[in-house]
Amino acid sequence: MEVSDVLDRVKTGVNAFDELVMGGLPRGRTTVVGGTPGSGKTVFATQFLAHGITHYGENGVLVTFEEPPVDIEANMRSFGWDLPAWRKEGRLAFVDASPSASDEMVVGDYDLAGLLARIDHAVKTVRARRVVLDSLTQLFDHFIGDPKILRRELFRISSALKKSKLAVLMTAERNNEYGEITRHRLEEFVADNVVILRNVLHREKRRRTIEVLKMRGSHHAEGEAPFTLLENRGVVAVPLSSLRLEQQSSMVR
Amino acid sequence: MEVSDVLDRVKTGVNAFDELVMGGLPRGRTTVVGGTPGSGKTVFATQFLAHGITHYGENGVLVTFEEPPVDIEANMRSFGWDLPAWRKEGRLAFVDASPSASDEMVVGDYDLAGLLARIDHAVKTVRARRVVLDSLTQLFDHFIGDPKILRRELFRISSALKKSKLAVLMTAERNNEYGEITRHRLEEFVADNVVILRNVLHREKRRRTIEVLKMRGSHHAEGEAPFTLLENRGVVAVPLSSLRLEQQSSMVR
Amino acid sequence: MEVSDVLDRVKTGVNAFDELVMGGLPRGRTTVVGGTPGSGKTVFATQFLAHGITHYGENGVLVTFEEPPVDIEANMRSFGWDLPAWRKEGRLAFVDASPSASDEMVVGDYDLAGLLARIDHAVKTVRARRVVLDSLTQLFDHFIGDPKILRRELFRISSALKKSKLAVLMTAERNNEYGEITRHRLEEFVADNVVILRNVLHREKRRRTIEVLKMRGSHHAEGEAPFTLLENRGVVAVPLSSLRLEQQSSMVR
Amino acid sequence: MEVSDVLDRVKTGVNAFDELVMGGLPRGRTTVVGGTPGSGKTVFATQFLAHGITHYGENGVLVTFEEPPVDIEANMRSFGWDLPAWRKEGRLAFVDASPSASDEMVVGDYDLAGLLARIDHAVKTVRARRVVLDSLTQLFDHFIGDPKILRRELFRISSALKKSKLAVLMTAERNNEYGEITRHRLEEFVADNVVILRNVLHREKRRRTIEVLKMRGSHHAEGEAPFTLLENRGVVAVPLSSLRLEQQSSMVR
Amino acid sequence: MEVSDVLDRVKTGVNAFDELVMGGLPRGRTTVVGGTPGSGKTVFATQFLAHGITHYGENGVLVTFEEPPVDIEANMRSFGWDLPAWRKEGRLAFVDASPSASDEMVVGDYDLAGLLARIDHAVKTVRARRVVLDSLTQLFDHFIGDPKILRRELFRISSALKKSKLAVLMTAERNNEYGEITRHRLEEFVADNVVILRNVLHREKRRRTIEVLKMRGSHHAEGEAPFTLLENRGVVAVPLSSLRLEQQSSMVR
Amino acid sequence: MEVSDVLDRVKTGVNAFDELVMGGLPRGRTTVVGGTPGSGKTVFATQFLAHGITHYGENGVLVTFEEPPVDIEANMRSFGWDLPAWRKEGRLAFVDASPSASDEMVVGDYDLAGLLARIDHAVKTVRARRVVLDSLTQLFDHFIGDPKILRRELFRISSALKKSKLAVLMTAERNNEYGEITRHRLEEFVADNVVILRNVLHREKRRRTIEVLKMRGSHHAEGEAPFTLLENRGVVAVPLSSLRLEQQSSMVR
Ligand SMILES: Nc1ncnc2c1ncn2[C@@H]1O[C@H](COP(=O)(O)OP(=O)(O)OP(=O)(O)O)[C@@H](O)[C@H]1O
Ligand SMILES: Nc1ncnc2c1ncn2[C@@H]1O[C@H](COP(=O)(O)OP(=O)(O)OP(=O)(O)O)[C@@H](O)[C@H]1O
Ligand SMILES: Nc1ncnc2c1ncn2[C@@H]1O[C@H](COP(=O)(O)OP(=O)(O)OP(=O)(O)O)[C@@H](O)[C@H]1O
Ligand SMILES: Nc1ncnc2c1ncn2[C@@H]1O[C@H](COP(=O)(O)OP(=O)(O)OP(=O)(O)O)[C@@H](O)[C@H]1O
Ligand SMILES: Nc1ncnc2c1ncn2[C@@H]1O[C@H](COP(=O)(O)OP(=O)(O)OP(=O)(O)O)[C@@H](O)[C@H]1O
Ligand SMILES: Nc1ncnc2c1ncn2[C@@H]1O[C@H](COP(=O)(O)OP(=O)(O)OP(=O)(O)O)[C@@H](O)[C@H]1O
Ligand SMILES: [Mg+2]
Ligand SMILES: [Mg+2]
Ligand SMILES: [Mg+2]
Ligand SMILES: [Mg+2]
Ligand SMILES: [Mg+2]
Ligand SMILES: [Mg+2]
Repeated sequence: MEVSDVLDRVKTGVNAFDELVMGGLPRGRTTVVGGTPGSGKTVFATQFLAHGITHYGENGVLVTFEEPPVDIEANMRSFGWDLPAWRKEGRLAFVDASPSASDEMVVGDYDLAGLLARIDHAVKTVRARRVVLDSLTQLFDHFIGDPKILRRELFRISSALKKSKLAVLMTAERNNEYGEITRHRLEEFVADNVVILRNVLHREKRRRTIEVLKMRGSHHAEGEAPFTLLENRGVVAVPLSSLRLEQQSSMVR
Repeated sequence: MEVSDVLDRVKTGVNAFDELVMGGLPRGRTTVVGGTPGSGKTVFATQFLAHGITHYGENGVLVTFEEPPVDIEANMRSFGWDLPAWRKEGRLAFVDASPSASDEMVVGDYDLAGLLARIDHAVKTVRARRVVLDSLTQLFDHFIGDPKILRRELFRISSALKKSKLAVLMTAERNNEYGEITRHRLEEFVADNVVILRNVLHREKRRRTIEVLKMRGSHHAEGEAPFTLLENRGVVAVPLSSLRLEQQSSMVR
Repeated sequence: MEVSDVLDRVKTGVNAFDELVMGGLPRGRTTVVGGTPGSGKTVFATQFLAHGITHYGENGVLVTFEEPPVDIEANMRSFGWDLPAWRKEGRLAFVDASPSASDEMVVGDYDLAGLLARIDHAVKTVRARRVVLDSLTQLFDHFIGDPKILRRELFRISSALKKSKLAVLMTAERNNEYGEITRHRLEEFVADNVVILRNVLHREKRRRTIEVLKMRGSHHAEGEAPFTLLENRGVVAVPLSSLRLEQQSSMVR
Repeated sequence: MEVSDVLDRVKTGVNAFDELVMGGLPRGRTTVVGGTPGSGKTVFATQFLAHGITHYGENGVLVTFEEPPVDIEANMRSFGWDLPAWRKEGRLAFVDASPSASDEMVVGDYDLAGLLARIDHAVKTVRARRVVLDSLTQLFDHFIGDPKILRRELFRISSALKKSKLAVLMTAERNNEYGEITRHRLEEFVADNVVILRNVLHREKRRRTIEVLKMRGSHHAEGEAPFTLLENRGVVAVPLSSLRLEQQSSMVR
Repeated sequence: MEVSDVLDRVKTGVNAFDELVMGGLPRGRTTVVGGTPGSGKTVFATQFLAHGITHYGENGVLVTFEEPPVDIEANMRSFGWDLPAWRKEGRLAFVDASPSASDEMVVGDYDLAGLLARIDHAVKTVRARRVVLDSLTQLFDHFIGDPKILRRELFRISSALKKSKLAVLMTAERNNEYGEITRHRLEEFVADNVVILRNVLHREKRRRTIEVLKMRGSHHAEGEAPFTLLENRGVVAVPLSSLRLEQQSSMVR
Repeated sequence: MEVSDVLDRVKTGVNAFDELVMGGLPRGRTTVVGGTPGSGKTVFATQFLAHGITHYGENGVLVTFEEPPVDIEANMRSFGWDLPAWRKEGRLAFVDASPSASDEMVVGDYDLAGLLARIDHAVKTVRARRVVLDSLTQLFDHFIGDPKILRRELFRISSALKKSKLAVLMTAERNNEYGEITRHRLEEFVADNVVILRNVLHREKRRRTIEVLKMRGSHHAEGEAPFTLLENRGVVAVPLSSLRLEQQSSMVR
């Protein structure tokens, strides 16, 4: 049997979510987490890294394109995640790919190979098993001016990261909760797995839900599950037992 | 009587679906299967190949543009389809047309003839009767920058494949469940047959349906039929007997 | 009285439809039949030719831009129309204007005069009285890259065909059932007559209707009439007697 | 008192409509009649000319851009208007500005001055008091490629025609019944008066209405009034007495 | 205290409207009046000038871009405003900035400084205190081809006019009643005050309303107030006393 | 512990709002306040500066791009804020970045570094702790023609201002109340905090609400809270105690 044909599961640390996806995100696959501003993409992605570090000894790399590492560290502190400590212990590495950090770069002529090399170097330095890119949309908006080559570059990044058998999670910006898909309309087709975080405004109230839109090669719970963002815990979703799996009953209306 | 004017039917392996289309997909015709991310396009297309191999001794060729063959093999394993075995037995061949596999190629100047030659070679190697292109949209997004020539190239591919009397199935990406047609808005007009896979979100639940939108030269059941994706079975639709054929009654409101 | 000011009616062979339009389509006028994929455009257009050949000794020319003649012949067989026989008897001629059939042609620089000459030659060869172009949209998408000259070319084709006092029917692709008009948004203004075929999805069922949107110089029934596609018969619409003419009552709400 | 500051009314021949606009269309002003395909724009415009000729001895000029004069003559016959006779008697003149009639012209470089000269000549020849341009949209789509100069040209045409104290009526194409305004979105702002013909599809039935959207310098009835197209009569609207004028009551909800 | 920090009020002559805005429009500020075709923009703007002339001895300048002065004079006569008389008495001046009046001008290269000079000259000639530009959209559509410089030019015009402590009112075209803002989407942000005139079609009836969308530096009534256009009076809105001010109660649902 | 990982709160002066965001806006972070024309962006931003000056001895800098300082001073007077006095006392500084104030500048080639230098100079001059940019959209519309570099510049401005540990508030224009996000669609993703001011028209009445859409690294109340604009007080929102926090109950429908 070949190495790749078993879907090795990676726990995200969002317990109820791991139940939704039959144990966790498949390793060696790309997962896109899409959402509107403030929907919880960065919290979810960081929790995924934090859980690897604290529960499984799986180190992580966090690639940022706009939010500086020092801000992410501050923002994640209230969830109980001590990123600076992990960083100092060599369990977490940042790749700061923000424009200010690479002054020589030119619009529309971005050296993607250079970024991949930097990520690769960070992965090797901390022997990372999990990688987060936050966010894909920022990468494309900043560095890749020509929409024609976007899909190809997205494919190349995914391919490069998958080759190293890493668990890869990429966030993507969505302009609204329903209807349209992600900004560049491609991310959700290219990724192996798609998770959507929603923050719906209804009659002046907000309601957050998480949905597994697709997971190639795997069964998963379908439909939206409510979640909340809690101090010292991060993303907390409803446990699977309290949700009915709709799949079997979907033949009947 | 000429060779082409009889619609020879090819069973897809989705039993209830074959009933919907009066026995199967016409050979020598192009079928487009459209759907949103995770709607089941790749599962449906692979099942079509798997059924030919295991039930009719009809070998197959699977042309991929983004999902690497090794991933598809892993993804299809849980449905009980042993693609690696078939590949080794010479009953299945992959054509990996992903960007990484053809480094020399240039954006907007894709050698479509080269792709057709590679497909043709694979078809001859395994003496294939069924061919899948997954997905057409990826082909166009990656390789054909100019939208003006899209329709013509789509026509050329279809013509070339139809000439060999193959049963051809091509997938296409749809941005949403209803309303708009496929991304490039042309695929559903150019194809001889169009099947739509939907994965509708309604009140936080998902519901999957399959519909035969058109089948040139043939009667077929009309409207959406529910289906589910099941472990070890793939696409499982409702048998025809449990659906009423709406055609005769469509004269009456 | 001049020759052109009498509207000579051409029966389409869709009996109930001919009643809707007070006897048939006016000769020497252009009719556009618009519809979504699989709405029945090609069936309707072929029935119009078939009826002329079998009932009135009016020979026909069918100009195709994508669907090869051999496929159309196969597709129409189940409706009971023996196109190959008529072709051999010199009562029907095809003009295959598909891209593959005219290799030397260049994108955006199509020799429309050449096409008109080929149609003219076919008309003369079989002494045709009826001509179908299936579809106009394919013609424009393939051969006429510049949208600015589209309206003019459409006008030129219509003028040329009308001069010969032929009954001309052209199909056009519509992207959805209601709301927007045809793809290029012009066909329905330029044509003398417009017929719309709809295939509406409502609560998972399909319902087909036909509507005469406009008919210059003639009264006609207004609103949608249901129809079905039947084996050995083609388009079968509801007879006029079972529909109430809404015109007189439209003053009252 | 200056000549222009009195609104001299021109009867359209649609009796109830003339009541809606307090006696008729103001002379020396431009009126745009907008509508979808088949909404009745050409019938309304021709009736306006016919009424002038038969009831007031006001001769007319009809400028066409696509529909050839001979077709318009045939189409209007069933309404009882004998255009060929009037043409022979020198009471009606056509200006055929269709592309075929002016072969030397170049796309996007149209000699508008030439068109105005031809119209002027026709006006003088028959001493016309009424002029119709059918349709403005065709003029702009055919001859004026650059949208930037559209508004200016529209202004120039209107100015030229208004200077001669003619009653000018121009038709314009609308893509749908409600929501959006005319195709180029400008006609309804530039014109002095705007009339909208609607042909609304509701529950598979059509209903025609006419509305005076604006009439600069004049009171007029507001809202939609139903009308029908009748053999030998043309546009027939509901008489004003059977409509309540909503203006005074519009202060109260 | 500096001169500019007191909001000196200018009465518009629409009595109830002046109540809505706590006494009138602030002098030295720009007000944009937006509306669809025929919504009453020109009537409102002229009434503003007329009232200044007849009640306060404040002379006015009316800058037109399409509607010739002579037409405006005719159109306003039925409201009882004798523009020609005022013009002759030197209380009103027109600046005719229509394309025909300035033949030498070039598309996309408009001499805005020249226009401002002409307005300035007219203001000085009649010692005007009130200025109307009807309409801003026409100015931009005609003369300023490049959308990139639109916002800047709009800013420059406003600045220039505000410097002279004039009461400035500019009209702007809106494509529909709700949803979208003005055509160029900028006018309503740049202006100090925004008034919207609506002419809503609901169940075949029209209803006119006026709304103060914003008024920088001032309290004002909020929401839509009905109005009508009356012979010899112009815009007549509902007096403030008959409207409840919704502001205080907006805290409670 | 590093300096940046504590979220130091800055009171806005809108009491109830500070409760919504757990004490105030985080210092060293960028906050975007988005809204339609007249929604209260400038009032909110000025109140933020005024409160710092009068209650905390935190001086402020107000960067304007269109509204001249003298107008803002006049507009804010009715809320009881004496900007001219503060300016003279060296507690408030304006940076007037309007086009007229920098004549030498060229479209699409704006010296952003120059603007940052001017802001920096003003900050140093008054030793400011709070900075307002009103509005970001005006900056981008005026000075940055190329949309491709917009996101990067927005990032650079934010980075530069955050480095100085200032409390930064930037306004942004929204085209409508719901649905679409800000004009350039990026501001709400780039900013650390997003506040939305709405001015909703419903059944001819307006209702104002304020919502904290996101606040990175901090809990906050979710959903819309009503507010009003009051003479001598500015933005007045409903105190937190009268709102139920919806977060805990969001798990239950
Ligand atoms: N300690 C906390 N307790 C509860 N909720 C919090 C806490 N910290 C942050 N949040 C919530 O998390 C949101 C930010 O989440 P996050 O940064 O993951 O969003 P995002 O989807 O990455 O947004 P963006 O596109 O702007 O980067 C905040 O708006 C806030 O509602
Ligand atoms: N073993 C399984 N049991 C049940 N469902 C499964 C199983 N494996 C996959 N699925 C379902 O199939 C979906 C993937 O289907 P598929 O890959 O055919 O979608 P697709 O339409 O090709 O999507 P894309 O456009 O992303 O390629 C998964 O999201 C999951 O819901
Ligand atoms: N023998 C038959 N009996 C009943 N229905 C049939 C039969 N043959 C074809 N059909 C119906 O006719 C449809 C095809 O019609 P047709 O080819 O005229 O569509 P079209 O509008 O020309 O589509 P396209 O835009 O794809 O060319 C099929 O989808 C099927 O529903
Ligand atoms: N004799 C008649 N009796 C009743 N109705 C008729 C008669 N002749 C034509 N019609 C109606 O008038 C319609 C055509 O009207 P007309 O040509 O004025 O439309 P139009 O708005 O000019 O359309 P286009 O944009 O296609 O030019 C026909 O579709 C038909 O419904
Ligand atoms: N004497 C009158 N009595 C009542 N209503 C009138 C009178 N004169 C004009 N009107 C109304 O005023 C409308 C025209 O108003 P106005 O010219 O101010 O519109 P506008 O918003 O400037 O339109 P445009 O964008 O076309 O310039 C007419 O359509 C008519 O409904
Ligand atoms: N003294 C006051 N009392 C009550 N409301 C006032 C007062 N002054 C101004 N307003 C309200 O404030 C609104 C203007 O607010 P502000 O200038 O902050 O809007 P904005 O969102 O900045 O708009 P823009 O995008 O046009 O700059 C006015 O339209 C008015 O409704
Ligand atoms: Mg984030
Ligand atoms: Mg797939
Ligand atoms: Mg067809
Ligand atoms: Mg017409
Ligand atoms: Mg006007
Ligand atoms: Mg403001």
